[in-house]
Amino acid sequence: MERGAIGTHLKNQPDEWKIEQGMHAARLPILDQTGPDPEGRAIPPEEYVPFKDEAAIRSVGDPNKLFTEEREGWEGYIEWEEYTDKKAKAHKILTSQNFPPPPEFQLGPIPGTNPVLEGVRWKMWHRAIGGALNTIADISWDTVMKEKHPEMLHLLQFPYNGEPPKRLVTAKPVTPNPLHFVRNHGGIPNIDRNKYRLDMDGLVARPQSFTLDDLMDESKFPRMEKLVTIQCSGTRRVEQIALYAGEGDEMINAPWAEGAIGTARWVGVSLKKVIKACGGLVGEGKHLELYGADTYFKKNNVMNYVVSVPWSKVKANEVMLAWEMNGEPLPKIHGYPLRVVVFGYIGARSVKWLYRIKAIEDPSMAPVQSQEYLYFNTQIGKHNQRMTDGIQIQEMPVSSAIMSPWSKQVVIHNGKIHCKGWAYSGGGRWPERVELSADGGFSWYTVPVENMSEKHRYAWRTWEMDLPCDVEGWIEIVCRCWDNSLNTQPLQVRAAWNWGLHVTSSAHRISIYSVNKTHEITRKRLAEFDERGVPFGPLTVPTEWQVQSWDDYRGYFEKNGPRDAETEYNSRDMED
Amino acid sequence: MERGAIGTHLKNQPDEWKIEQGMHAARLPILDQTGPDPEGRAIPPEEYVPFKDEAAIRSVGDPNKLFTEEREGWEGYIEWEEYTDKKAKAHKILTSQNFPPPPEFQLGPIPGTNPVLEGVRWKMWHRAIGGALNTIADISWDTVMKEKHPEMLHLLQFPYNGEPPKRLVTAKPVTPNPLHFVRNHGGIPNIDRNKYRLDMDGLVARPQSFTLDDLMDESKFPRMEKLVTIQCSGTRRVEQIALYAGEGDEMINAPWAEGAIGTARWVGVSLKKVIKACGGLVGEGKHLELYGADTYFKKNNVMNYVVSVPWSKVKANEVMLAWEMNGEPLPKIHGYPLRVVVFGYIGARSVKWLYRIKAIEDPSMAPVQSQEYLYFNTQIGKHNQRMTDGIQIQEMPVSSAIMSPWSKQVVIHNGKIHCKGWAYSGGGRWPERVELSADGGFSWYTVPVENMSEKHRYAWRTWEMDLPCDVEGWIEIVCRCWDNSLNTQPLQVRAAWNWGLHVTSSAHRISIYSVNKTHEITRKRLAEFDERGVPFGPLTVPTEWQVQSWDDYRGYFEKNGPRDAETEYNSRDMED
Repeated sequence: MERGAIGTHLKNQPDEWKIEQGMHAARLPILDQTGPDPEGRAIPPEEYVPFKDEAAIRSVGDPNKLFTEEREGWEGYIEWEEYTDKKAKAHKILTSQNFPPPPEFQLGPIPGTNPVLEGVRWKMWHRAIGGALNTIADISWDTVMKEKHPEMLHLLQFPYNGEPPKRLVTAKPVTPNPLHFVRNHGGIPNIDRNKYRLDMDGLVARPQSFTLDDLMDESKFPRMEKLVTIQCSGTRRVEQIALYAGEGDEMINAPWAEGAIGTARWVGVSLKKVIKACGGLVGEGKHLELYGADTYFKKNNVMNYVVSVPWSKVKANEVMLAWEMNGEPLPKIHGYPLRVVVFGYIGARSVKWLYRIKAIEDPSMAPVQSQEYLYFNTQIGKHNQRMTDGIQIQEMPVSSAIMSPWSKQVVIHNGKIHCKGWAYSGGGRWPERVELSADGGFSWYTVPVENMSEKHRYAWRTWEMDLPCDVEGWIEIVCRCWDNSLNTQPLQVRAAWNWGLHVTSSAHRISIYSVNKTHEITRKRLAEFDERGVPFGPLTVPTEWQVQSWDDYRGYFEKNGPRDAETEYNSRDMED
Repeated sequence: MERGAIGTHLKNQPDEWKIEQGMHAARLPILDQTGPDPEGRAIPPEEYVPFKDEAAIRSVGDPNKLFTEEREGWEGYIEWEEYTDKKAKAHKILTSQNFPPPPEFQLGPIPGTNPVLEGVRWKMWHRAIGGALNTIADISWDTVMKEKHPEMLHLLQFPYNGEPPKRLVTAKPVTPNPLHFVRNHGGIPNIDRNKYRLDMDGLVARPQSFTLDDLMDESKFPRMEKLVTIQCSGTRRVEQIALYAGEGDEMINAPWAEGAIGTARWVGVSLKKVIKACGGLVGEGKHLELYGADTYFKKNNVMNYVVSVPWSKVKANEVMLAWEMNGEPLPKIHGYPLRVVVFGYIGARSVKWLYRIKAIEDPSMAPVQSQEYLYFNTQIGKHNQRMTDGIQIQEMPVSSAIMSPWSKQVVIHNGKIHCKGWAYSGGGRWPERVELSADGGFSWYTVPVENMSEKHRYAWRTWEMDLPCDVEGWIEIVCRCWDNSLNTQPLQVRAAWNWGLHVTSSAHRISIYSVNKTHEITRKRLAEFDERGVPFGPLTVPTEWQVQSWDDYRGYFEKNGPRDAETEYNSRDMED
């Protein structure tokens, strides 16, 4: 066949070989085979043509008067949920112009920078609204620089999403605050603790407000302290991206690795007691809607960050209103002065900069609850998705990750590879057993219990182990966990791949080049490198000297016979 | 090489070819390669040499006086736990003789009978003790015949283990009592409800006894009603056996299929309220030891059936003392007059014929808790097992099974295969999504939500679906479930295989011969069978007539060229 529709369209671009091989797929047109042409019709990607209706935007009014801070001492907090009119105005501004599409980082390569992604569209949206949102991106980044560890990996600069590097993720069983991952959905408000109040309303008997001192008053509310692991449902998403591209919003689907999980000792009060102080739920009140002071953007609408948790979870004392993280007041970036910590649920429910709790009948209709953090079947995607096709993610399943060694690393060892990492299960379950395989998931070794951190009801366990490995060359080390309910992880990424790239629950796999020094030939070869003062790495650099003597080579064939078995066709007799 | 140690030992037995192929492995000697012979040394299996020390047995005393029923109106109940001396006497009787090894049903074939296994050793043990245990096997079997459905599959005749056939497992979302699976560990006591009492002692403030009327008195105890699925951790064990043999006690490891799960509406009281009526726990009381009136045998010791549940489970109102099952008094075989129902735990904790609850500090040391129902890593087995290497099984993980079609069935369809089955998750989690694959687990279809039974916190969901399948020939249909915590099942049996053959949590796979009548060639071929009045099955019976006309055959090669591509070696020119 001649070159078909796809090739014709591409007109010999310089990177065509890579496009043909799926290595630069962002530039590969969609192939529509539903028409009359059996080879299909190439549909080029949408082109970005900027537009901006300045008059329409101006007609909305002065942003500095419209989009102002709601409360004194609450810098960066704009109230949206109470003002339908204000939301409509913001919507008009956003729909009177367009914005560049999100940068491609799945079908093209993930940038090799730190920050990895910048959040250009998010910055543009905030500046388009203006008012109190005009400078929040810069202020937020300053807070990152002040509060987070200098070695953080910044997945997204704004809204800030960052995780620690592998060497620091499990350095301690309790994550130091500057290293705790951050997954913000908007700018970071700056709230004066003395001006702080929490409003509790909706279907409670006596709606009321609480200051931070009210909540801290132990004569009113028993204090609660708990070691809790918070995990983003995007943890290890990069493995799903490496397999197949999914939905690509740079913010929503930042390419998280294994560090979007952290463990802290939180202090606060049980939300149950606060609801009790309001006389309890009334009517059909069955869910608690939680409001964060950060501003969130979704499909050209502007809003506060809102989700909900069911009463059953609150009733079990698994929802804490926390002001302390590892013995310190909450860092600003983690929700100062008060945040929610929902034990055993994804981080998205643990609302930061909490300013309101509303008791409602049904789960929140806010987009973070209803449109995002949805878990789809593999066949659901851009072509057919509906919100109700997804399971709303609350409890996280059992998972685990290897923090050392790193994928593609050459490991020189004496028959055992030292590995370390974490294991976690949501919903109050805990890791009972961690297993490692050096043969791609066929045989499994149990991590000795003395090499695991303590068992807690809502926290991860860190672990380390010397994994027996005789085999050399490229191997796959796989890690899986069994929790106390004996749930475990499927072994392949595809088994749990989904369009939203959430909940990478498959066993963690890393490719390792195993060099086993207990093998005599290997030991001698490494000694040669040493003697010649040539480093062994990089792996793919060819060895510059002869790897075997000619005497040895000839001796081999003298002893074992020639390369080709004797047949009538390699005999020298031409007469046959 | 010459025939080695294994073959020599076998001396050309008539079934040697099957032994060589691993098809009759019970007769295959163990191969010890740790000695000097590089081929290894064959170790033949232990031979059974009966012995019986009649004098020692007689010296124990008269069984009809020693092993008598403990309470009036409690037929078949012998109290063991209170009498160390009685236990010692029973132990002496059992160790003064030996018993035949359990029948082999893993390395050899599973019998094709109903009952599948008889429980010969168990019957012998009971008769060896004598007294009230002498006739209990026969009495129990009479109860099976009276109370269970005539179509039950009797996995083990005594102690009775039975499950319904696939066509009846999911016929209704609530299992009718006669079809509910039974996994008894001893004989069935026959208890007069008016002579019944439950003793509550140990670490409670006010130890006391309750009659059934006390517990049923709603002025004392609020009544509780709940739909609960009980599952044996041995469910689907037959898949593990088919892969590799594990521990082989016929009773402990009966070859359960997918029917060791049942769902009933239970009525009773919360154990929490009964403990409250005893003034609550005192001291270090943290676990509740549950005593059943049935007699159990383990490693030559005789005892009552005893397990424990943690207080946290009781506190959450997840432990019921139940007297009613689907609107009827408990059948005798299910624990009449009172049993425990532990929501979301394996059936082994739901003690039948409950006569005592003791509050204790630590989990029970009784063998059912400490030595059985343990979940091991794949490398743990006969050669190295310790009790503490196993996770004590409490909550069951997410699982599912296909009830129709059956494995190896030929299914003639019009592009969709109708499937039905169940899905379940322990610990109060519930199936959120059931998925089916017709391609061995590569692509997955979601069962439409309207084809699933209702969502309950402690119950399974039954489901059915028309699964799209274009492919013909041998296929594998796979079923998996995602629960509300997004846990799912590993895809291969090996991923979860374990020595105790417990908790078959891998996705359920069946091999189906797919015959797709929407394919023209297939439609015509089936019509030929019809016209000739020849049944299509069995599949492996060769078709007796020519499957293609010679005209068609010749026409094919005329049109498409000869079978072999033209090369210099199939040309007729000999001079080359």
